[in-house]
Amino acid sequence: MEAHKHVYSNILTPLLFLERSAAVFPDRVAVVHGDQRHTYREFNERVNRLASALKLNGLKKGDRVACLLPNIPAMLEAHFAIPLAGGIIVPINYRLSAQEIQYILEHSGASFLLVDTEFHPLVSDLDDTVPELKHIIHISDDPAYPAPDGTAYEDFLQEGSPDTIPWVVGDEYDDIAINYTSGTTGKPKGVTYCHRGAYINAVGEIVETEMTPDSKLLWTLPMFHCNGWCFTWGVAFIGATHVCHRKFEPGAAWRAIEAEGVTHFNGAPVVLIAMVNHPDAPERFAHPVTICTAGAPPSPSIIQTVTEMGAHILHLYGLTETYGPYTVCTWQPDWHKLSFEAQGKLLARQGVGYAVGGPTRVVDEHMKDVPANGEILGEVVMQGNMVMKGYWKDPETTATAFRGGWFHSGDVAVMHPDGYIELRDRSKDVIISGGENISSIEVEQVIYRHPAVLECAVIGAPHEKWGETPKAYVTLKKGQELTQDELIAFCRENIAHFKAPTSIEFGPLPKTSTGKIQKFKLRDEDWAGREKRIQG
Amino acid sequence: MEAHKHVYSNILTPLLFLERSAAVFPDRVAVVHGDQRHTYREFNERVNRLASALKLNGLKKGDRVACLLPNIPAMLEAHFAIPLAGGIIVPINYRLSAQEIQYILEHSGASFLLVDTEFHPLVSDLDDTVPELKHIIHISDDPAYPAPDGTAYEDFLQEGSPDTIPWVVGDEYDDIAINYTSGTTGKPKGVTYCHRGAYINAVGEIVETEMTPDSKLLWTLPMFHCNGWCFTWGVAFIGATHVCHRKFEPGAAWRAIEAEGVTHFNGAPVVLIAMVNHPDAPERFAHPVTICTAGAPPSPSIIQTVTEMGAHILHLYGLTETYGPYTVCTWQPDWHKLSFEAQGKLLARQGVGYAVGGPTRVVDEHMKDVPANGEILGEVVMQGNMVMKGYWKDPETTATAFRGGWFHSGDVAVMHPDGYIELRDRSKDVIISGGENISSIEVEQVIYRHPAVLECAVIGAPHEKWGETPKAYVTLKKGQELTQDELIAFCRENIAHFKAPTSIEFGPLPKTSTGKIQKFKLRDEDWAGREKRIQG
Repeated sequence: MEAHKHVYSNILTPLLFLERSAAVFPDRVAVVHGDQRHTYREFNERVNRLASALKLNGLKKGDRVACLLPNIPAMLEAHFAIPLAGGIIVPINYRLSAQEIQYILEHSGASFLLVDTEFHPLVSDLDDTVPELKHIIHISDDPAYPAPDGTAYEDFLQEGSPDTIPWVVGDEYDDIAINYTSGTTGKPKGVTYCHRGAYINAVGEIVETEMTPDSKLLWTLPMFHCNGWCFTWGVAFIGATHVCHRKFEPGAAWRAIEAEGVTHFNGAPVVLIAMVNHPDAPERFAHPVTICTAGAPPSPSIIQTVTEMGAHILHLYGLTETYGPYTVCTWQPDWHKLSFEAQGKLLARQGVGYAVGGPTRVVDEHMKDVPANGEILGEVVMQGNMVMKGYWKDPETTATAFRGGWFHSGDVAVMHPDGYIELRDRSKDVIISGGENISSIEVEQVIYRHPAVLECAVIGAPHEKWGETPKAYVTLKKGQELTQDELIAFCRENIAHFKAPTSIEFGPLPKTSTGKIQKFKLRDEDWAGREKRIQG
Repeated sequence: MEAHKHVYSNILTPLLFLERSAAVFPDRVAVVHGDQRHTYREFNERVNRLASALKLNGLKKGDRVACLLPNIPAMLEAHFAIPLAGGIIVPINYRLSAQEIQYILEHSGASFLLVDTEFHPLVSDLDDTVPELKHIIHISDDPAYPAPDGTAYEDFLQEGSPDTIPWVVGDEYDDIAINYTSGTTGKPKGVTYCHRGAYINAVGEIVETEMTPDSKLLWTLPMFHCNGWCFTWGVAFIGATHVCHRKFEPGAAWRAIEAEGVTHFNGAPVVLIAMVNHPDAPERFAHPVTICTAGAPPSPSIIQTVTEMGAHILHLYGLTETYGPYTVCTWQPDWHKLSFEAQGKLLARQGVGYAVGGPTRVVDEHMKDVPANGEILGEVVMQGNMVMKGYWKDPETTATAFRGGWFHSGDVAVMHPDGYIELRDRSKDVIISGGENISSIEVEQVIYRHPAVLECAVIGAPHEKWGETPKAYVTLKKGQELTQDELIAFCRENIAHFKAPTSIEFGPLPKTSTGKIQKFKLRDEDWAGREKRIQG
């Protein structure tokens, strides 16, 4: 039979979330930032002020609004106000260079920019390559960074009205956000999200993390990263509380966990490593905390450490192209019987698709599933509501990424007999030594088991005979000592000899702005002056 | 930008849930029924057997399959297998008469019927008015009811294959179920659900009830009732466990809660009343249990009672037309400080729309919202993904129900200042006495506060001077005594005098098959021989 003609409210959009939480939990604290406390009523009023001010200043349906902001309340307000006004939010990584930021402003065609005064120098020198940018609004959050001349955020809010604007979304597949990938090589690509996808991913985060209205999320993950894995919207879905920190600093994070009763935080494994190695780290968590880690494969060691501290760890995996996390290493009932070490190994796997989401496959080059034996490498492909619409203004790259009807992650994994995937590498990070494929992650995980190691990265270094050979870059924990020979011997005890590194360099590791180790930089060093390695 | 052309898996359908739980939790128990235990692997195999057997026997896309089944595993299997085969499930209330059942089979045009041997007598005499019905499959669950000649369910399953059939749903708005309303007057109407609505409602149940993969749901609610409020599908979404009981019997329910570690059960207030008044009822729940009640407004007294027993009660409200529950009386943080009595009063309100769902309004006859003052009566109207597509083969009634773009519930409510709705009556149950509107529910809730009262119903009885006057029908608890005068005096102490009943009859109350008290029968008695009351 014909579907009943629904009016607007059957549309799936995160705008529903704030509307409901403002109505149902008006007096509950939505956002904490230092001494600031905004209830859902106040948060909603500020969102409506921002949305109406944007409209008053000429924002039209589909216009892009860029945000160069740290984890502060204005960034959360922007996540609702921009789509409420009919616009598309373009969060920008503030660790990028001025040139990269200019490229993103230009490519997205943003007409508004919200910028924190700390990052104003990055955009103070914009030339006429961004002619579409008409309004810059300055947010003064930290007195250390004086406000430049121009429109101040709080004044801009005063131009708007706190009255509720009814949201109007024509189609749930309309764009809501463009997230530029940090892109280790080439120009950043604009990953485009729609209202429907944002709704489903946000609900998915709440289901998987079991957040309730009483939960408190500490922002240890940048909100510019996949819209904070859609938690920017998800927290409002369930009516929980955001705890903002401008900067991630482990000591401040530990204090907030204690003082604010934080129940959840998210971060890349480097964030967890920094937390547990901080002098203020407690022996055990004083109250139940769920930690989600994603962005890079965590080692079993760090999982074991936080589990022993009493945290509930969820290992998630995804990409900017999948609204952040797409898989979760779902806990199985019989794992309780295992040692922390064995649990750590199981939890270091990337797992299975979210309950709200689509299937996860590991396929060969002919799109045939690899055997579920935990050994044969293949590429992870994804599909459905948790996958982006495509790359902004780039139909060719979009078509390539979706060849065969599935999004190609570029990540190399095995499928275990229990249906859990485990990443072995980015395609380009696989080491090919004497015709054997070596997973750099597998070697790294062995190195992480050494108690003196803080961080490491393994790459394929050039080798006369084998083509490539594993080489490790290692940062030791403070006050620890270890020689190359000792660590190589340790590896050879724990892994096939051909996989063990043949050389090791000690020192700090180059990282991207989101905390990912930049293996390509290490590789470039090693391969300088040689024939360029062909990358998959 | 153009949406990426998704292939099948972006479709929202509960079929995703079983596919995932069978993959992720193959060895977890999906269904418990007496000594039977089916893991998700086995459950999935049985579902695929049933789906493929239906297809082998001629089921085509969009065909209807009726189910006249109690809360047994076959009913759960049918909920996945029928849509998996491309069909539409038509659950039938087995407490209806043979004539009513025949009408539903005829009106839905069902080509298959799954029937429990206990209810075979209801369909043993089908005449040729149901020519479309070609296959009857008999399920022998209880040895007390011998199997008639014909196709036995387990043999039928053997015709199919346990291999996974990939689900194919052309459009997420395709029909998945038709639920006939029990209809106190007139012919039953076929309320039609789609895949998308079933997905969203099922996810909504899990979010609101905070079920996790470790949860165990005891089936104290008939699965034929709005597909068991979509928990038939929702439990598979989260990978939890169903505990089946053929019949609701309070003693057996208490034993199962203890023996199976039941964490959740659902039921109309009469179910809760029967549970807490049973001799086996414990002083307190031995472990955390969440009870959802809906289907009729619960009295504050019963809410207070189960809360004092340590249960977490969720008061839900909805209709068959809203896939079951649509609102939830969401707990507010500051309610913890209140007495159980005060909590009971707040929790007896129907509350606010689900987090996944649409808005709830209380409107006057011009679709204008009534003031949120807890006093002015209006009609509850709903909208969005949690509302049915329409009535099967009845576009006129559908159009009337959706006049003004909103589904009209026929329920009369007030809107409280905190945005929570509270039902006052079905439109037709409002008592109009001397020009004053009296909510029969308000009067009933006062009567329920008397410790001797088990159940009651208040109607408008004819009155020479006032037109109508409140009259109460009351069932006392076992061994209790109470006179009409004593109870009237009790009411007048607790409510405006004009609202207090002027006469009371003691005895059992007539009920529908889903446990709702049939006020129209009581009214018919009182109004027999008089001019028929006009019903709104």
